Amino acid sequence: MAIKDIKEISERVLPLAALSVLLLFAILILSIIRTSIFGDVEPEKHIYFEIVFLLLLAVLGELAVNYLKQPSDMILMVLGMLMSASFMQLGFGFLSVLPLPFQIPSAPPDILRMEEIIHVFAQLGAVILLFKVGLHNRIERIFAIDNLVVAFAGVVVPFAAGYLYAISAGGDFAYSMFLGAALTATSVGVTVAILKEFKMLEERFAQIIIGAAVIDDVLGLLVLSFVINITDGAASLMPLIGTFVSAAVFLSGSILAGKYFIAYLDRKEMSPRRFLMALAFMLMYAYLAEFIKLSAIVGAFIAGIILNQSRHIKELEDKTYGLEMLFMPIFFISLGILVDVNALATYAVPILALTVIAMLTKIIPCGAAGLWAKLKAKEALLLGIGMAPRGEVALIVASIGLTTKVLSVSEYSIISAMALLTTFIVPPILNMLIKKD
Amino acid sequence: MAIKDIKEISERVLPLAALSVLLLFAILILSIIRTSIFGDVEPEKHIYFEIVFLLLLAVLGELAVNYLKQPSDMILMVLGMLMSASFMQLGFGFLSVLPLPFQIPSAPPDILRMEEIIHVFAQLGAVILLFKVGLHNRIERIFAIDNLVVAFAGVVVPFAAGYLYAISAGGDFAYSMFLGAALTATSVGVTVAILKEFKMLEERFAQIIIGAAVIDDVLGLLVLSFVINITDGAASLMPLIGTFVSAAVFLSGSILAGKYFIAYLDRKEMSPRRFLMALAFMLMYAYLAEFIKLSAIVGAFIAGIILNQSRHIKELEDKTYGLEMLFMPIFFISLGILVDVNALATYAVPILALTVIAMLTKIIPCGAAGLWAKLKAKEALLLGIGMAPRGEVALIVASIGLTTKVLSVSEYSIISAMALLTTFIVPPILNMLIKKD
Repeated sequence: MAIKDIKEISERVLPLAALSVLLLFAILILSIIRTSIFGDVEPEKHIYFEIVFLLLLAVLGELAVNYLKQPSDMILMVLGMLMSASFMQLGFGFLSVLPLPFQIPSAPPDILRMEEIIHVFAQLGAVILLFKVGLHNRIERIFAIDNLVVAFAGVVVPFAAGYLYAISAGGDFAYSMFLGAALTATSVGVTVAILKEFKMLEERFAQIIIGAAVIDDVLGLLVLSFVINITDGAASLMPLIGTFVSAAVFLSGSILAGKYFIAYLDRKEMSPRRFLMALAFMLMYAYLAEFIKLSAIVGAFIAGIILNQSRHIKELEDKTYGLEMLFMPIFFISLGILVDVNALATYAVPILALTVIAMLTKIIPCGAAGLWAKLKAKEALLLGIGMAPRGEVALIVASIGLTTKVLSVSEYSIISAMALLTTFIVPPILNMLIKKD
Repeated sequence: MAIKDIKEISERVLPLAALSVLLLFAILILSIIRTSIFGDVEPEKHIYFEIVFLLLLAVLGELAVNYLKQPSDMILMVLGMLMSASFMQLGFGFLSVLPLPFQIPSAPPDILRMEEIIHVFAQLGAVILLFKVGLHNRIERIFAIDNLVVAFAGVVVPFAAGYLYAISAGGDFAYSMFLGAALTATSVGVTVAILKEFKMLEERFAQIIIGAAVIDDVLGLLVLSFVINITDGAASLMPLIGTFVSAAVFLSGSILAGKYFIAYLDRKEMSPRRFLMALAFMLMYAYLAEFIKLSAIVGAFIAGIILNQSRHIKELEDKTYGLEMLFMPIFFISLGILVDVNALATYAVPILALTVIAMLTKIIPCGAAGLWAKLKAKEALLLGIGMAPRGEVALIVASIGLTTKVLSVSEYSIISAMALLTTFIVPPILNMLIKKD
C-alpha cells in the first residue's frame, strides 16, 4: 500500500472512530446517570453528582433571566419546591427518579448526612450573599434614624397584630406570644437578591431595607428572648438584659475592632494570606452573630460593611465570585425544598389568613414609616413589601416553639408555611412592581 | 455648661467608651471561643467555627512560606497530623481542647456528620487543585511517549517488588498481590502543589510527572481490577477488559466531547451561566472518573486540560480563586489528620521497610526512564521523587483489601501508613533539592 492510500483510509476511518467513541461515551454517561439516580452509589462519590445537579438547576435559573424575564433566585426557589419531599408525595411519583436525597421521606443515615452537607452549602450561600451586600454599604448608613423608625414600625405592629389575632382565634397565651414573635422576624435575603439583579441596591429605599433589617434582627431577638422568658413562667428581666447587652456589645464592638483588621489588611498587597484572613473574618463574624442568636447573615453583613473601608474592596469582590456562584444558588433551591405542600393543603385557611396578616403588618407600617422618611409612594411600597419576607428567621422562632413544646406540630406547620409563603410571594411582586416602570 | 465643656468632656469620654466596648467585645469573643471548644454548640452553627479554625491554620501555613521558608502545604499536613485522633491519645491530652471533631475517638453522630462535611470540602480542594493544573496543560502533552514509558516503569517495578517482598516476608498470595497493587498507585497532588509553589510546573520534568500520573492512574486501576479478580478465585478476563474499556472510553470520549463544550463556552462572553456550566463540567468529570474507579482528581484534571483550549481561560483561572483558597488548605490538613501515629509506632519496622521499598521502586525506574527521555540527572531525580507519593490512591486500594477481607487490620494499617509516609516525605525532599540550586 502506498502512503497515499493509508492517508486516504485514515481520513475516512478517523471520523467514524471518533463518532463511535463519542457514542460509547454517551452510553457510558447515560448508564452512570441511570445508576446515580436509581442505584447505590457511595455517598462520598454521590455528593459530586448532587452538586452538579444543583449547579445545572442554577444554570436553568440563569436561563430564566433571559427567556422568562424572571429573577433567577425566584425560579430556583420554585424548582426547589418542585423537588420537595411533600410535593413528590402528591402523586408526582414519576418525578421521584430525580436524584436529590431530600425527597425520600424516611431517609437512611447516609442521605441525612448528604442533606446536612447541602444545608451547609446553602447557609454559606446566604452568608456570602449578605457579605457581598455589606461590601457595598457604609456603616453610617445602617444606624440612621430612618432605618430605626422603619425597623420599630415593622416590629411593634406585627407583634401586636399576631398576638391579637391568635388570642381572638382562641389560641392560648404562649402560642399567641410566639406567633407575635414569629411575625416580627425579617429575612431580607430574597429581597436583596432581587434588588441586586435589578441593580437597585444603591437606591435609598433599598438602603433603608438593609439597615432596618439589621436593626430588626436585634429587635426580633429581644422580642423572642422576652417571649421565651415570659412563657417559661420565670418572669425575670435578666435574660432579656443579657441578650440586649450581648447584641449591643457584638454590634458596636465588632465594628470598632474591625478598624484594626482593616489596618492590618491594608498594610500590604492582597496576598493569599490576606485573602484567607478576610474569609476567616467573614465566617468568624457569621459564627459570632449566630452564637449570640443574631443570625449568621447579620454577622456576615457586618463583616462586609467593615471591609467596605478596605482599599482591597475590588479584589475582595472579584475573588469571592466563585464562592458566590457555587453556594448562592444552593441557598435558594433549599428554601424551596423546605416547603411542605401537604401542610399548605391541610391548613389552607389559617395559613392564608396568617400570610395576609404577615404581609399587611409589614407593608403598612414600614411603608408609612417610609413615607415619613420622605420616600416617594412607590418606593415606600417597595420598602414595605421588601421587608415582608419572614424566611428562615421565623422558621427558627417556630422551631424553638416546637422544641420547647409551646407550639403543637400543626401550629408549627402553620407558622413555618407562613414564613415560606411570605418569602415566596415577595420576589414576584417586587419583580412586577419594578418592571411596571 | 458651655458647649465647649461638653465637647471637651466628650473628647475625653469617647475614647474611654470605645476602649471599654472593645474590652467587652474581647471578653465576648473569648467566652464564645471557650464555649465552642469545651461546650455544646449545635453542629450547624459549629461548622462555621470549624471552617474558621481551618482557614486560620491555612493562614499559619502561608506565614510559614515567609518565615520558615517551607511550602505551606507541607506545614498544613504537619498541622493536620498534630490534630489527628491518634496523636491526641499519645499523652497530648492538653491539646484535646482544640475544637476539631476528628480527635474524638468515639464520635457521636453529629460529629461524624461534621467530619463528613470537612471531608467533602477536602475532596473539593483536591478537585479544584488538579482542575487548575489541568487549565495550564495541553492535551497533546499528556499522551506523549515519554510519559508512557515513565508510567510503565513506575507501575511494573513497584508491583513486582511489592509482590516479591510480601511473598519473601511470608505473606500469602492475596496479600502479596494487594501490596503490589498498592505500590503501583500514584498520587501527585502534593508534588504538583510543591512544584506550583516553586513556579516549576512549566518545566519539562514537571510535565512528564503530570502526564505519567494520569496514565499511571489508568494502569493502576487495571492492576487493581486484575488483583481483585484473581484473588477472588474467579479468574475471568471479562471484568479486566470492562475496566480497561470504560477507562479508555472515558478518557478519549471526554476529550472528544469536550470540544463541543468549548465551542458552546466560547460562543459568547463569560456570563454567570457559562461560569456555572464550567463548574458543573469540572464536577461532572470528577464524578464520572470517580464512578468508573479512576480518581475524581483525574476527572477534574481532564476537565481542566479541555478548558485549556477555551478563550475564557484567564477568567476561569481568576474566578475560581476563592474556591481554591477555601477548599485546598482543608485538603492538606485532612491528609495530615488521617495519619495514625499509633500504627506508626506498633509496626515501625515493616512500615519503614515498605516505605523505603515504595520510595526506591518509583525513584529508580521513573528516574531511569527520565534519563532515557533525555532529562538532566537532577531533573530525573526530581521526576522519580515526584512520582513517589502514594497518597489517597493507595489508601483506597488498601481499604478495598480490608473490606473484601483479603487484608487483615494490621496489614491495612501498614499499607496505609506507607501511603501517608510517602506522601509526607516527598514535599521536604523536593523542597531541599530544589532549593540547593
